[in-house]
Amino acid sequence: MSNEPIAIESVLATFTDLWSPRILTRINDYDVRVAKVAGEFVWHTHDDTDEFFLVLDGELRIGVRDEHGERHVTLPRGSVFVVPRGIEHKPSSVDGATIMVVEPTGTPSTGDRHDALPEHITTTTGRRVA
Amino acid sequence: MSNEPIAIESVLATFTDLWSPRILTRINDYDVRVAKVAGEFVWHTHDDTDEFFLVLDGELRIGVRDEHGERHVTLPRGSVFVVPRGIEHKPSSVDGATIMVVEPTGTPSTGDRHDALPEHITTTTGRRVA
Repeated sequence: MSNEPIAIESVLATFTDLWSPRILTRINDYDVRVAKVAGEFVWHTHDDTDEFFLVLDGELRIGVRDEHGERHVTLPRGSVFVVPRGIEHKPSSVDGATIMVVEPTGTPSTGDRHDALPEHITTTTGRRVA
Repeated sequence: MSNEPIAIESVLATFTDLWSPRILTRINDYDVRVAKVAGEFVWHTHDDTDEFFLVLDGELRIGVRDEHGERHVTLPRGSVFVVPRGIEHKPSSVDGATIMVVEPTGTPSTGDRHDALPEHITTTTGRRVA
């Protein structure tokens, strides 16, 4: 990993594919990933880790299913949200968004359990920045 | 901790003191902290953890002392940098900056080792948002 500052925009300029996080940098055994998203992801659950979202641009919606039933939260640009471990959730964005995610290195994007994957979604643990 | 989205701006609006991080949220046993900074912090070292910086506004400078000697990196708004564990460093900002920091819960702002603290700096592990 680079030991120089990284301009997030310069990394975002290197790709256009959706729901395919790039690993910006690492903190101990955690990844800081950035992704471009639009449309719907898939319901999934990380059994052993929380997942942190920061919206860098656009607006993200996250469906959440917990003991109170199903709800969703809306994250405008400049807001953060943590999905607790074990909570089924589904990110989506009608008009597209750019997000930063922090989670342990190796965490699969579709969790430990997920619904059937639609064609536009591939499970990944993040790609290294070229 | 809240299980609702948090607008970073709304937390920044609750304080004006410098070099005094607020804990925005937690990811497992990590804090996401935000701080307002200006002027010089103190040379310090975290022996057991990396420290992640994201510049939300303004420009941050981080002095770094490693095996190659002393240098500094400059982080404009929208850039990130990780100070590796064990590396002596000193954040500063001539014109002021707003930063996000990710590090393990309980990490003291002045590290495990630091130079004499000037009057404007207090060691903290971050304050909870009111």
